Amino acid sequence: MRLLEQLVSRFENRSAVIGIVGLGYVGLPLALRYAYAGFKVIGFDVDHDKVRRLNDGDSYIEHITTKSIREASERGFEATAEFSRAAEPDALIICVPTPLNAYREPDLSFILNTADTLVPHMRIGQVLSLESTTYPGTTEEELKPRIEARGFKIGEEVFLVFSPEREDPGNPKFNTRSIPKVCGGVTPACREAGVALYSAAVDKVVPVSSTRAAELTKLLENIHRSVNIGLVNEMKIIADRMGIDIYEVIHAAASKPFGFTAYYPSAGVGGHCIPIDPFYLTWKARQYGLHTRFIELAGEINNDMPHWVVNKVTGALNEHGRSVKGSRILVLGVAYKKNVDDTRESPSVKLMELLREKGAHIDYSDPHVPVFPKMREHHFDLESVRLTPETLGSYDLVLLATDHSAFDYELIQKRARLIVDTRGVYLERLPNVIKS
Amino acid sequence: MRLLEQLVSRFENRSAVIGIVGLGYVGLPLALRYAYAGFKVIGFDVDHDKVRRLNDGDSYIEHITTKSIREASERGFEATAEFSRAAEPDALIICVPTPLNAYREPDLSFILNTADTLVPHMRIGQVLSLESTTYPGTTEEELKPRIEARGFKIGEEVFLVFSPEREDPGNPKFNTRSIPKVCGGVTPACREAGVALYSAAVDKVVPVSSTRAAELTKLLENIHRSVNIGLVNEMKIIADRMGIDIYEVIHAAASKPFGFTAYYPSAGVGGHCIPIDPFYLTWKARQYGLHTRFIELAGEINNDMPHWVVNKVTGALNEHGRSVKGSRILVLGVAYKKNVDDTRESPSVKLMELLREKGAHIDYSDPHVPVFPKMREHHFDLESVRLTPETLGSYDLVLLATDHSAFDYELIQKRARLIVDTRGVYLERLPNVIKS
Repeated sequence: MRLLEQLVSRFENRSAVIGIVGLGYVGLPLALRYAYAGFKVIGFDVDHDKVRRLNDGDSYIEHITTKSIREASERGFEATAEFSRAAEPDALIICVPTPLNAYREPDLSFILNTADTLVPHMRIGQVLSLESTTYPGTTEEELKPRIEARGFKIGEEVFLVFSPEREDPGNPKFNTRSIPKVCGGVTPACREAGVALYSAAVDKVVPVSSTRAAELTKLLENIHRSVNIGLVNEMKIIADRMGIDIYEVIHAAASKPFGFTAYYPSAGVGGHCIPIDPFYLTWKARQYGLHTRFIELAGEINNDMPHWVVNKVTGALNEHGRSVKGSRILVLGVAYKKNVDDTRESPSVKLMELLREKGAHIDYSDPHVPVFPKMREHHFDLESVRLTPETLGSYDLVLLATDHSAFDYELIQKRARLIVDTRGVYLERLPNVIKS
Repeated sequence: MRLLEQLVSRFENRSAVIGIVGLGYVGLPLALRYAYAGFKVIGFDVDHDKVRRLNDGDSYIEHITTKSIREASERGFEATAEFSRAAEPDALIICVPTPLNAYREPDLSFILNTADTLVPHMRIGQVLSLESTTYPGTTEEELKPRIEARGFKIGEEVFLVFSPEREDPGNPKFNTRSIPKVCGGVTPACREAGVALYSAAVDKVVPVSSTRAAELTKLLENIHRSVNIGLVNEMKIIADRMGIDIYEVIHAAASKPFGFTAYYPSAGVGGHCIPIDPFYLTWKARQYGLHTRFIELAGEINNDMPHWVVNKVTGALNEHGRSVKGSRILVLGVAYKKNVDDTRESPSVKLMELLREKGAHIDYSDPHVPVFPKMREHHFDLESVRLTPETLGSYDLVLLATDHSAFDYELIQKRARLIVDTRGVYLERLPNVIKS
């Protein structure tokens, strides 16, 4: 166990080198955190443009400042696209995306390609940690055999752990350091190495008995959110039909000091977690002959919400004798949630597409997204419209999709002819606001 | 509005008389609370035995002390079965049960019988509040027309509100006074009367815009619980099949300081709320052509849990070469939840029945339930077994159904041959404990 003790002490005394693989929403803040904690950090990414920008002291993520990149560089952070340097770090932390393919099956290609690129360069004495959200068994079934194929003994020569990322961009209360980190190892020695690795950078590490328990922990967190959002969306549909304001009901229920946690309805779910992660468990459960019925139901209801909102828009315009076809509609907020610039899986984009298909002239306004981004499956050649009394008044309908704090809701309410509010921003009854 | 002002001031200066109708788990604590707050309180109940016991200073609910009954009596609380006295109070608060019938439809008979008994005695200047959990529309559709049929103008002569009970017996942190009270009125004047009524006895009243919003608020709270318990029960089944300890995963997920609330699996749901209330919305939603899919799914999974646990028991005995038939099984805890004496809808009773049907010899132990109570649909002629090293060792299997704090879990683990733990009491792996 000499090797393990040496490795642990290198984490404790900050002499270890940390390698972060994948410099996106998860990897970049983690790399900065380790640099700030006193480590030399090598950030790996296949995207040469990202590597260049980081080494130039530039940031490509809105909530990460260029100042923080520059400070990290001064403290020993560097980015590289040279994966042959993977032998340099004592720890390799994989932070790559785990999307779904077109058939809603796990797409592990980023993990597997990363592993196949890294493993040939690995050396004795390293700890490899996977942070990407995935189904229980991934670390043991996919990473372990690849490392063993190089002849390394796991738990003796190389240490393998799973520690799920819990990044929450835009959360003002918690950051990479203050969010506790769950960590499970393939062996007890692996876990010890993982706990030492993360304890050096985050305030609290929560060890669990296996990588599978750690993998399921992250899925449970996101399944919990997906199901609770699905439930409140179903409740919204029922309350709406009964003529009851669901937001008033949720606010009243939230006055109960135990046994209730408020979730809010919306036009659907977005981001890289909630619409995707739960289905990783669905896929794996099939192998055990099981169905994940809550996940399926939540997915079904949440996916259907943009259609429900479009019906509300159609109804609101119809009340004013207008069709969707030919109407000018302004969508407020294309990011998937409040105060972030991330448009991945955003239901706003789905709304824009559905309304465009019906013949509406679509514009959008989002202070966090000045130009509509390039997306694999969606195309809008648009720039964010500035909200002024004139622009607001020029649209037949304003569709409030994402409730950014930067919007001037009083101005919007004063000047918009008709507002469909999918976020419960306007609590009181107002003549030009339809709640959706 | 002279009448309303007078009524409000009678609540404010404690000169009003409060009538509580139905002196069970909800009505009795509320009656005591008003007596303690300085009001003369008349408690109405059709059960002459309850009335006699209360007037003798006796309690029939474990967590309500005889001392508190006697103190309330000294402060002006009396019980009666004479509903003709319904004209005496300024406020009539209905706290009667709302069960389901055999077809899982709302059984409003207690509410309607109470209303039909009270209304003929009502007088101008009274406020009538319904606290029983029910579907949106009950107050307006059932109570309002009955009062109007007597010729009273609602909102002018008589004030009608809905304010859902939120009692949580066994909760050490919150009580009748400190749990905020939601209140909706048929008219704004009704609501004002209701807010004045409750503000005199509870710390915080949360007004909502209608009785329907107040009715749905209570349902949302319990639907939220039912669905979250259903979800974690489904997750338990999946984790169990994958060989992962769901309790370890829940504890790890609970380390996330935002976006996750821990719910725990069990042998099913019990009590007078969670298994019943959600279906009140299911029934009403049908009238609007809607399905409540999350409620149905949660009900299905939660109702199936006793069968799942019985399979675990069968498997555990089988491992030791025994059949359920002929085995001696001790069920720990027949109350539906920790530290209470309430056996209504308790999954423990369902477990006892299922195991008896399979030929097991069943005993139970529950410090809160010394004698197995008379229940409408269940019959066991049993008394609680005292837990000693000898009794524990004499059973083939101990089924831990309800995790009362009073149990000596160390003794149980030491002496029981085999334990099936449905509550995650035993976190570590132990040779005689099967998690279920």
